[in-house]
Amino acid sequence: MKAAMIGGGVIGGGWAARFLLNGWDVAVFDPDPEAERKVGEVLANARRALPGLYERALPPEGRLGFCDTLEEAVEGADWVQESVPERLDLKHRVLAQVMAAAPEDAVIGSSTSGFKPSELNAQGARAVVAHPFNPVYLLPLVELVGDADLTGRAAETLRGIGMFPLILRREIDAHIADRFLEAVWREALWLVKDGIATTGEIDEAIRMGFGLRWAQMGLFETYRIAGGEAGMRHFLAQFGPCLTWPWTKLMDVPEFTDELVDLIAGQSDAQSGHRTIRELERLRDDNLVGILRALRRTGSGAGGVVLAHERTLPQGGTGPDGLPVTLEMQVPTSFVDYNGHMNEAPYLEVGVRASDRLMEMIGADADYIAGGLSYFTAETDIRFLSEIDIGARITVTTQVVGGDGRKLHLFHRFWTGGESPAATMETLLLHVDLGTRRVVAPGGAVAERVAALVAAHAGLPAPERLILGRPAS
Amino acid sequence: MKAAMIGGGVIGGGWAARFLLNGWDVAVFDPDPEAERKVGEVLANARRALPGLYERALPPEGRLGFCDTLEEAVEGADWVQESVPERLDLKHRVLAQVMAAAPEDAVIGSSTSGFKPSELNAQGARAVVAHPFNPVYLLPLVELVGDADLTGRAAETLRGIGMFPLILRREIDAHIADRFLEAVWREALWLVKDGIATTGEIDEAIRMGFGLRWAQMGLFETYRIAGGEAGMRHFLAQFGPCLTWPWTKLMDVPEFTDELVDLIAGQSDAQSGHRTIRELERLRDDNLVGILRALRRTGSGAGGVVLAHERTLPQGGTGPDGLPVTLEMQVPTSFVDYNGHMNEAPYLEVGVRASDRLMEMIGADADYIAGGLSYFTAETDIRFLSEIDIGARITVTTQVVGGDGRKLHLFHRFWTGGESPAATMETLLLHVDLGTRRVVAPGGAVAERVAALVAAHAGLPAPERLILGRPAS
Repeated sequence: MKAAMIGGGVIGGGWAARFLLNGWDVAVFDPDPEAERKVGEVLANARRALPGLYERALPPEGRLGFCDTLEEAVEGADWVQESVPERLDLKHRVLAQVMAAAPEDAVIGSSTSGFKPSELNAQGARAVVAHPFNPVYLLPLVELVGDADLTGRAAETLRGIGMFPLILRREIDAHIADRFLEAVWREALWLVKDGIATTGEIDEAIRMGFGLRWAQMGLFETYRIAGGEAGMRHFLAQFGPCLTWPWTKLMDVPEFTDELVDLIAGQSDAQSGHRTIRELERLRDDNLVGILRALRRTGSGAGGVVLAHERTLPQGGTGPDGLPVTLEMQVPTSFVDYNGHMNEAPYLEVGVRASDRLMEMIGADADYIAGGLSYFTAETDIRFLSEIDIGARITVTTQVVGGDGRKLHLFHRFWTGGESPAATMETLLLHVDLGTRRVVAPGGAVAERVAALVAAHAGLPAPERLILGRPAS
Repeated sequence: MKAAMIGGGVIGGGWAARFLLNGWDVAVFDPDPEAERKVGEVLANARRALPGLYERALPPEGRLGFCDTLEEAVEGADWVQESVPERLDLKHRVLAQVMAAAPEDAVIGSSTSGFKPSELNAQGARAVVAHPFNPVYLLPLVELVGDADLTGRAAETLRGIGMFPLILRREIDAHIADRFLEAVWREALWLVKDGIATTGEIDEAIRMGFGLRWAQMGLFETYRIAGGEAGMRHFLAQFGPCLTWPWTKLMDVPEFTDELVDLIAGQSDAQSGHRTIRELERLRDDNLVGILRALRRTGSGAGGVVLAHERTLPQGGTGPDGLPVTLEMQVPTSFVDYNGHMNEAPYLEVGVRASDRLMEMIGADADYIAGGLSYFTAETDIRFLSEIDIGARITVTTQVVGGDGRKLHLFHRFWTGGESPAATMETLLLHVDLGTRRVVAPGGAVAERVAALVAAHAGLPAPERLILGRPAS
């Protein structure tokens, strides 16, 4: 599949990275001589952050090319994304060129934050609004507005690259999210202008309070809870009347004078100027990866989107030692020490994921556990053999060393590209009746599959060392 | 220290929990016959969630009492918090009673979301606005407004219970954060009323996009990044003009009719009605704990507040086996399986924290590492002996089994209240020159402290089993 990016700034570059890392080829057209460098920097950020959301490998990266003409970029494209500056005449010109040169069945998306499809298509284009949020490679939301068939097709593609399409029922200036952002922005400008709060204080007022709520539930679900046991109706009864109180200055718009720009830019320098934009981007991305990985635990909001995308990624295969691959993942930034290496604590998380996969392979899966039987880990030994760097891809292979009766004995190797494993993990599990909490032998298909794996793996190179299950010293 | 809660609803109960779990005694006065049950339920949520943010133990919980009169509640109180309904005449009456009965030097805080101190104190009270955010036991933000001396004293107390006081420069209706919330709320009501989006769609527009950004950076720092390399000034130049575009309906206020209430309550039921309020609260809290623990990794925003509070909590002491306590923490909800037990992966995280503390005790701390020397873990063996439940408090003791030359051999026991450990972790570390990446012997104070611990621990009960460092089989 091929995507064409018309415009390669922060947004176009973010789109390019999202498509590339999901296996699409990407062609960029942007007359800016700096476009290639800029897209490259966004892509470097994305490579560092996005793959670490998943506990399966993303597909091999697509090819990235930069084109001299728009026509060359859109040739044969399945998706064309327009991300040029927010001027309607310019968008009209670009969309007319796209219409003339792109395949008839290509989705044509516009990153516009303000214009409606009826405005974009006033001169005969068939674009849909596909409005993303920065950083495009990590935030899943895309607002889709336009023709029902076109937005439906666009939504399917967006889900395929791990995004969350929100199809609007009706077109409206600035769609949905930016109406909220604009409302907050106006109020914030007044607060700064009137000397009530600095930019830094406003940011603290957001991220120390309601920002934490909005990362996982939105406005209405949060307020439903605030209503306590009586729920939404009680909340509305309690806070509805406040609407007419003088809690806003939004009836008016602050004038955008040089003084106001100087005030805001100066306060922002004082607040954040000790970090470069690149450092801020990486801090933001590290935090987003941490938050998204926290949300994937509960499947809430964007965490649910990550899990759904992960289930579509292939798994399996055979590792360099001829054993089955039970995990393939990129080291997420949240696994990393201040010194840039993988901290030792997440090694067990990696190994446990591999054991979980082996459990699925032998049929001791969620249904089996729901039926009252499971494997419990009795002991695990990890050897840290060489350092693992940030961004490394870990491939775990699993050898079933023993599976007699109630015991299951596994040996995982963590491969990161070298000739020998970067770590090994030996683990001894016991088969347990969840009702009595007693150790019992497995039967049926599980016992058979374990025996088959033991036999199949016996002919492969033996573990470098086994120390569990021996008599104590 | 004693705090008096006047009003024991969701907010008063949240304050009570925050104070109690930080070791304060709390007296509640609320004429509602259901107050004791309601506060108890908030407290149960808080006990489950708050302690898991820290990797040290919070102080022993204070005593909670319910009083028949306001006078009894405020007697001897160091902090009095008013959280009664948002009616100025009621607040005046309550504050007058508080002024008459509370100690002269007590801080008097009001949870009001809308009133200014000049309004609250119009009849001679000396209250400050101390406006928190739900859930009060997890979100750190408290907006403080009022007399500089009083808010300064209040801020110190709030930091002591792990909160983030934001002192406003000037009083203003609805303070800062609620001005934003109100702006978003108005815009959301229009979108629902006009049939542009449902409550569920609005929540997705928030939590799939900008909500994820706002959990860690606020509005201005986010936009500074969006400006790309040119920063804030470029962003302002680009988006300033949009201010006059028709991106809002906020020039007007929707009428709060029965139809609008029915529409919103009905959509909210369809969106969230499959979960009880209690289930939603726990999901919210689990997500907040996960997000806050993700943010403590980078020290950003609320994660920095958690770390700063943690550093004030005592550590050390001796465990049931006579060995030094190297970690004392409550199992966070984010460590827990769907079955309510601690998942095996975080065991290593717990043990690594204990090893880190032992490193500090022998002087191999951050300064030592900055000087070019450190211990690297070569191998770790964990035995899982009994299940650990959600909410359990884990006390880790550490025995220094060996410390000859370049090796350091540790044995951790994880205690959860029983007569024997719930888990043990044996770990073998090597002393490394970070420049050459080679194993070298430690010298000076570190070697002496290791030797002293080996000698001191030799007389204590030996580890139940040691298997590392033996010849391979």
